[in-house]
Amino acid sequence: MRRAIALAARGLGGTSPNPVVGCVVLDPSGEVAGEGFHAYAGGPHAEVAALREAGGRARGGTAYVTLEPCAHTGRTGPCATALLEAGVARVVVAVPDPNPVAAGGAEVLRRHGVRVDEGVLTAEAEEGNAAWLTFVRARRPYVTWKFAATMDGRSAASDGTSQWITSPEARADVHRLRAESDAVVAGIGTVLADDPRLTVRPPVRPAGPAADPGAAADGPPRAAPVLRVVADPGARTPAGARVLDGEAPTLIAVAEDAAVPAHLSQVVRIPRVQGGIDLHALLAELHGRQIVSVLVEGGPTLAGAFLREGLVDRVVGYLAPALLGAGAAALGPAGVSTITEIHRLEFASVTPVGPDLRVVLRPKAPAHQSSLPASSLVTDPLVTDPQVVQSPKES
Amino acid sequence: MRRAIALAARGLGGTSPNPVVGCVVLDPSGEVAGEGFHAYAGGPHAEVAALREAGGRARGGTAYVTLEPCAHTGRTGPCATALLEAGVARVVVAVPDPNPVAAGGAEVLRRHGVRVDEGVLTAEAEEGNAAWLTFVRARRPYVTWKFAATMDGRSAASDGTSQWITSPEARADVHRLRAESDAVVAGIGTVLADDPRLTVRPPVRPAGPAADPGAAADGPPRAAPVLRVVADPGARTPAGARVLDGEAPTLIAVAEDAAVPAHLSQVVRIPRVQGGIDLHALLAELHGRQIVSVLVEGGPTLAGAFLREGLVDRVVGYLAPALLGAGAAALGPAGVSTITEIHRLEFASVTPVGPDLRVVLRPKAPAHQSSLPASSLVTDPLVTDPQVVQSPKES
Ligand SMILES: NC(=O)c1ccc[n+]([C@@H]2O[C@H](COP(=O)([O-])OP(=O)(O)OC[C@H]3O[C@@H](n4cnc5c(N)ncnc54)[C@H](OP(=O)(O)O)[C@@H]3O)[C@@H](O)[C@H]2O)c1
Ligand SMILES: NC(=O)c1ccc[n+]([C@@H]2O[C@H](COP(=O)([O-])OP(=O)(O)OC[C@H]3O[C@@H](n4cnc5c(N)ncnc54)[C@H](OP(=O)(O)O)[C@@H]3O)[C@@H](O)[C@H]2O)c1
Repeated sequence: MRRAIALAARGLGGTSPNPVVGCVVLDPSGEVAGEGFHAYAGGPHAEVAALREAGGRARGGTAYVTLEPCAHTGRTGPCATALLEAGVARVVVAVPDPNPVAAGGAEVLRRHGVRVDEGVLTAEAEEGNAAWLTFVRARRPYVTWKFAATMDGRSAASDGTSQWITSPEARADVHRLRAESDAVVAGIGTVLADDPRLTVRPPVRPAGPAADPGAAADGPPRAAPVLRVVADPGARTPAGARVLDGEAPTLIAVAEDAAVPAHLSQVVRIPRVQGGIDLHALLAELHGRQIVSVLVEGGPTLAGAFLREGLVDRVVGYLAPALLGAGAAALGPAGVSTITEIHRLEFASVTPVGPDLRVVLRPKAPAHQSSLPASSLVTDPLVTDPQVVQSPKES
Repeated sequence: MRRAIALAARGLGGTSPNPVVGCVVLDPSGEVAGEGFHAYAGGPHAEVAALREAGGRARGGTAYVTLEPCAHTGRTGPCATALLEAGVARVVVAVPDPNPVAAGGAEVLRRHGVRVDEGVLTAEAEEGNAAWLTFVRARRPYVTWKFAATMDGRSAASDGTSQWITSPEARADVHRLRAESDAVVAGIGTVLADDPRLTVRPPVRPAGPAADPGAAADGPPRAAPVLRVVADPGARTPAGARVLDGEAPTLIAVAEDAAVPAHLSQVVRIPRVQGGIDLHALLAELHGRQIVSVLVEGGPTLAGAFLREGLVDRVVGYLAPALLGAGAAALGPAGVSTITEIHRLEFASVTPVGPDLRVVLRPKAPAHQSSLPASSLVTDPLVTDPQVVQSPKES
């Protein structure tokens, strides 16, 4: 199953709005006969790919799948049927399918006499599919807040200068984070101050049958470019802003009552709340557009609002080994006025990125997710340097 | 030599104002015949301890010593003489003795026909003796600034509450840091706000012939209790302050022109500069009192002043996996007004301490120290969990 989870991770960034899935098929003697993963939406499902590779050896064998096989016919046929037709005797499942449309694969298999074992390495497999599971269970995209700061939590000197606090390696890592997301969100404050492009550089390769799976080291291929979203209650995004350069689609999320200037075409109206637009409504809107994961790139005001609303599923911080002692803070007001209201998280991983440190934090046991394995430092899909980060125990 | 460096580290906290030294004696066939380290000032030197254990087997053998053997007679006889008397044929030295009083041991040995090789694992051995080498070379104590903060660099919520941001494990680690220091320094702002005791708890065992070396896991024994120092230009330390409780000696460093109230007895007058007392002069004063290492415990204003003056040799940060978004910053103004003036350091180690993360940073190549080994993450004497921190390559 661990191999199947590793295979699944190869689809990260490409499968949206589908989950990542990995599958390993063993022949009746227990030898690996086929492996597969879901690489892009509309492409073959993991089970189908693995069964194709296994051919006749699948008959009487066992399939390990990270997610319960689907029983419905979407763009591809149902996987449960494919497993039945291949004559597999046993199916081992890590995570039951939470999707009301697709669930029922285990039931279909059992009805046809296939032994189905569930709950194997569930926590690890859920972690690999965290974004999609949040998308399905919480009916909103999975939200990652990314920040870059000094050890004393500052992202600019007192005169506003900030280039560059973190290293080229850390900035390249941010592009990888963007490529794994379906949308990048920034506040109008950041757009006005920094005029960022918010695109993935180097550009991601288009996903699809022509994509070269061997080139995965450059970042995952994507079915669609990463959507750029600006939280801009007053429709203040200026005509010349780089987010409007056409290199990727952009959505300007304005308040219901905003007077929208002519140069803003891709606009969505969101109810207004204290401080800006209703972030729950914004995420619901993005959910409706099949956005599974968003990366909130700041600034501090918007990040504080996401945190205050309990809408942050993961924090990725790039910490430079440097001190400023003054200047803009990486995080603005987040609804904490006394220490008992502090936002408590836990470290998911800590990894050197060039001279900097990348820390990944997750809230303690969020409502819509199973809790993580007991180990306080576990790897996550981002980990690049296995020397420094403790790996989950080998099974 | 690596074994000798490890032995030396067992003396940390006990040998002040002497260096830590480790020694391994091999017999002529290359087998380990004796090991020793300097455990407390006035106690046997490492070479003497190792030679005692080796007995007759030292004759014709090799001694590995982390620091050049002394040639002068202090509280104990010169080690160079002891090595000669034992008939050692070769001495391998990691770090030449920078102390003008003690240096010359290698010269004495060579004059008597002993082969002396120098420069073996010098960087590692210097790191183990960083405090003492700074004390001798820069003629001031080695300064560690310690802070505790959230991931966004805050040490209190906006209403001033701060108990507890970091874990009991992190706070216990701070007591170990204190026990390894000769003095703890706090600003009057911290004394007035928090009324800290600044003592080591549990109390350190007295060092000396009676100390049980097997009990080292509880922290190093100390020759003297840790001196508490308050940077208090206006002599504002109140009569009931816990730093005056008599549990450890306390020095109130006031400005030359301060009117000192009767309840302050242990006072030293330091020239006044912009912002407070002259920190260079304060450290010179402490150097004169044989203080080899100081731990600056804050607050943010005093820490910023130490940093601005280039007087911080090591930063130890305890980072809680939590976010506040508002409240007091861990570091105050540190002389940086634009990004090019940023204080650049590098990570020496990153270690989990309970649920928190301890990061140790050092300035890049400080003037009075050799630069560290190339590896960007190396262990330091504080490291407790070898699973997560990359170890220096084994030789
Ligand atoms: N350290 C980092 O990683 C990082 C990352 C990005 C940016 N930055 C820095 O952050 C600075 C800009 O930050 P900022 O705080 O001024 O701006 P910001 O967080 O980018 O944007 C804040 C604005 O977002 C709008 N908004 C929409 N919905 C909101 C809601 N529910 N709650 C709060 N605000 C909402 C508001 O616009 P209206 O005022 O129009 O209502 C608000 O003023 C720049 O200097 C940039 O360099 C740092
Ligand atoms: N995060 C942490 O790890 C940590 C650690 C300790 C304290 N704290 C917090 O920090 C707060 C207190 O900090 P603070 O900044 O107000 O006080 P502070 O840094 O403890 O003390 C500042 C005072 O030190 C005196 N001083 C002496 N020489 C100085 C110099 N060369 N430069 C600057 N100051 C000099 C000045 O006293 P005069 O005004 O009399 O001239 C100055 O006001 C407390 O709330 C405490 O809880 C946090």
